[in-house]
Amino acid sequence: MADQREILDKAYSHARRANLVSSTMALLEWDQHTYMPELAGEYRSDQITWLSEELHSLQTNSQYGEWLETLQNSDFAKVPESAHAANIRGLLRDYKKNVQLPQRLVSALARATSRGQQIWVEARSKNDFGMFLPLLDEIVRLRIEEATILKQPGRTRYDSLLDQYEEGADSNEIALVFQGLQKELVPIVQQASDRERTHSKKLRFSTPHDVESQRKLSQLVAIRIGFDFQRGRLDETAHPFCTTLGPNDHRILTRYLTDSYSSGMYGVLHEAGHGMYEQGLPVEHFGLPAGSAASLGVHESQSRLWENMVGRSVGFWKWLLPMAKSLMPELTDVTLDQVVADVNRVEPSLIRVEADEATYNLHIFVRFELEKELIDGDLKPRDLPERWHSLYQKMLGVKSPNDADGVLQDVHWSAGLIGYFPTYALGNLYAAQLFQTAERDLGDLEHMFESGEFQPLLDWLRTNIHSKGRCQLPHLLVQSVTGQRLSAQPFLSYLRRKLLP
Amino acid sequence: MADQREILDKAYSHARRANLVSSTMALLEWDQHTYMPELAGEYRSDQITWLSEELHSLQTNSQYGEWLETLQNSDFAKVPESAHAANIRGLLRDYKKNVQLPQRLVSALARATSRGQQIWVEARSKNDFGMFLPLLDEIVRLRIEEATILKQPGRTRYDSLLDQYEEGADSNEIALVFQGLQKELVPIVQQASDRERTHSKKLRFSTPHDVESQRKLSQLVAIRIGFDFQRGRLDETAHPFCTTLGPNDHRILTRYLTDSYSSGMYGVLHEAGHGMYEQGLPVEHFGLPAGSAASLGVHESQSRLWENMVGRSVGFWKWLLPMAKSLMPELTDVTLDQVVADVNRVEPSLIRVEADEATYNLHIFVRFELEKELIDGDLKPRDLPERWHSLYQKMLGVKSPNDADGVLQDVHWSAGLIGYFPTYALGNLYAAQLFQTAERDLGDLEHMFESGEFQPLLDWLRTNIHSKGRCQLPHLLVQSVTGQRLSAQPFLSYLRRKLLP
Repeated sequence: MADQREILDKAYSHARRANLVSSTMALLEWDQHTYMPELAGEYRSDQITWLSEELHSLQTNSQYGEWLETLQNSDFAKVPESAHAANIRGLLRDYKKNVQLPQRLVSALARATSRGQQIWVEARSKNDFGMFLPLLDEIVRLRIEEATILKQPGRTRYDSLLDQYEEGADSNEIALVFQGLQKELVPIVQQASDRERTHSKKLRFSTPHDVESQRKLSQLVAIRIGFDFQRGRLDETAHPFCTTLGPNDHRILTRYLTDSYSSGMYGVLHEAGHGMYEQGLPVEHFGLPAGSAASLGVHESQSRLWENMVGRSVGFWKWLLPMAKSLMPELTDVTLDQVVADVNRVEPSLIRVEADEATYNLHIFVRFELEKELIDGDLKPRDLPERWHSLYQKMLGVKSPNDADGVLQDVHWSAGLIGYFPTYALGNLYAAQLFQTAERDLGDLEHMFESGEFQPLLDWLRTNIHSKGRCQLPHLLVQSVTGQRLSAQPFLSYLRRKLLP
Repeated sequence: MADQREILDKAYSHARRANLVSSTMALLEWDQHTYMPELAGEYRSDQITWLSEELHSLQTNSQYGEWLETLQNSDFAKVPESAHAANIRGLLRDYKKNVQLPQRLVSALARATSRGQQIWVEARSKNDFGMFLPLLDEIVRLRIEEATILKQPGRTRYDSLLDQYEEGADSNEIALVFQGLQKELVPIVQQASDRERTHSKKLRFSTPHDVESQRKLSQLVAIRIGFDFQRGRLDETAHPFCTTLGPNDHRILTRYLTDSYSSGMYGVLHEAGHGMYEQGLPVEHFGLPAGSAASLGVHESQSRLWENMVGRSVGFWKWLLPMAKSLMPELTDVTLDQVVADVNRVEPSLIRVEADEATYNLHIFVRFELEKELIDGDLKPRDLPERWHSLYQKMLGVKSPNDADGVLQDVHWSAGLIGYFPTYALGNLYAAQLFQTAERDLGDLEHMFESGEFQPLLDWLRTNIHSKGRCQLPHLLVQSVTGQRLSAQPFLSYLRRKLLP
């Protein structure tokens, strides 16, 4: 046991060293998206490349692998949901994956995706899918190769990609839930958007919305819902994100638009949801699985819960509207009903990131379907635009006039992120399951929001989700908290209650 | 030659890798001083410690040392002031110094100075020199040990510390110049401060000075004098500094005070002087001596030149005052003469960083004297406060009522920086030598400043100083540009012309 302890310490300290590297990379990237001078990008890439090499060499160190193999059979690994067991299991899993992939493949993917993202920006701005196609071909080919290497018996190739973002997820099971959801979602969207067409709920303003006022309001909201500014910051960037630079350093980023009074604040609610999850992970396990998020799906459940279930509720706006009015005079004559209707409009649209809550998942289903076909080899990248249009027509009844707002709209595939999209939809479903359970445990949450009381909900999430880290597989974690398997029903009843009164 | 080329490339690439590490550390430190959340400090130290270990291991790599030894006898090293020769000489010098010091000493110094700075903050706030003394004892002892190891034949121990900041400097020669300067400075200060006492030039305002207006004015000044914001930024922090994060990433920082309309802007002028020097170094040699600053003294000459010789001139204020008035209504009734007199007041004071141009060097002489005595072993750290008071009395005629504003006022010694202070005074003297020469070459500079023309001066500095990197020893560089050895005369005539009309 003394020997085992020593090996455990060595393995942890090695894993934590790898985290020093990755958190330093995260700072370089955060700075790149916020304050870095215009011409500093090339050298920044050199710094990041150097760190990724360091990281890869730490992650695939064979001595480290031996320690983990030894620990797998140690007493520490024997208590199923303990932090040590989770750490050993998680670290070994990551290690095995890292060493399984040949260096040639890792480098080829790094090159193709780095180049891919640059070409994608250009291709999108020129609306030229053909320009992007050779790189997309290469990326898909390499990820198929990767998926083939990592494939588990009885699972699909696509599963082995999905598994990197949502451990243990089974794409067939997910597909069943998504299909059920889709069937019920289509008529809801239909009804709600019919209403919107006949009687638009959109608020219209003649003046631009002052950015400084939006900043103040968003800051205030972030503080009040519980994002800890002693351990974090809020900055601005083109594409909102959240990043962790240390156990007490969580940074969220949004962007403010002068043609929207609320989109910057919804960015903050979303990213603060991610940030509060990170802030609630066990600090003593920082850099280890027990101190890490369960999965991207669970992560997204936190952001969507705060953005939508909290931030688009009547109770929330009862609390916020007076303050919003005092900061934004243009809202003076707006009523509570008007603003709540405005932020909950449903309208099938072309662009995922601008989609409302009801149609959002439909955008995901299109991508989920396409990704599976690509990785199964049933669809060639060159046929993507056509298939894209046909699925959008079927799921949302809209057709993009071009590829820039069609198949070229997301950065993900150009960055090699295939298998990532479904976690967005999982996040929406998990959020509804969790919110329903929290309400069962805590009583009327909206009533609390009315008086700006968000702490009970945050505490509940801390206890049930955040403090658990990555000690269980994500679907089992949600199941153990909510008492039910992945289900679309809570999400559907939430939507119906809100949209079809 | 082909072999030599190969070795040269390997050595350069190794040195540049070390620079990736140190520039990444610089970002971690910049962030720590600007945007890092309050509670993130501990983990940040871990990240920095890890990087300093990486850096040290690269810097003392024996294979790297062998390459440099080989290159020393190669054709590349034979052209005296060529970039390659400078690179080989500089890299080998740094390497030899790094490997000469035992790891035990390096670690002990890192620990003592890290702890020293923390204790110093507390001791200063409590005005308790006794609290700081044990660590100061330790730091002085370790640096004496270091100085003994590095000591060159025929030079003093102190020289080997000074040499780390000002290569090739001889403390005896410097002492002679400083003594001459001091003798002539004392009556100038006397006269100027008599005038100030009998007829104060200080501008007094009833309202606080708006920080946003100061920001705008400072930004405008930085752009106009030639700081390149495509390759740099301006931020705020408690103690102004300048740092380089890459060949195209130079960051300057200042702080704005509501009780001064100008101190924030003078911080910007000073730091932009440093920043423009860094921006003018040859980018193609970034990370190598030929792409580095010649010394701290030459660096300080650039900051002091822009802060004082430019920024406190009549011509500069003729250009700036109208803009300053439009941003700061409190200046409306102030005349050009008044503002120029105000920013050029002379008054012996206790605190170095608040000192005017004329008395500033006297503060340095006190420290230079004390440092030499400490390293020679003639003065024990416990006797510092008394000796401090006696030297201040002698040089400036003032006596601090306490140690907080006496011997505890500067961070330097707590950080192990002994031998650093004289570079500040050298900077003042070099600045005057350079400014005099630039004026000889370019004609009436103040006349140019009146119309906001700073480019000719900057171009002259680029050509004569910036583009030269660290290819010559600093005193030889200044001598080759100005035609004279280190001299106090240009500085004294500059001061006399300004202060004793």
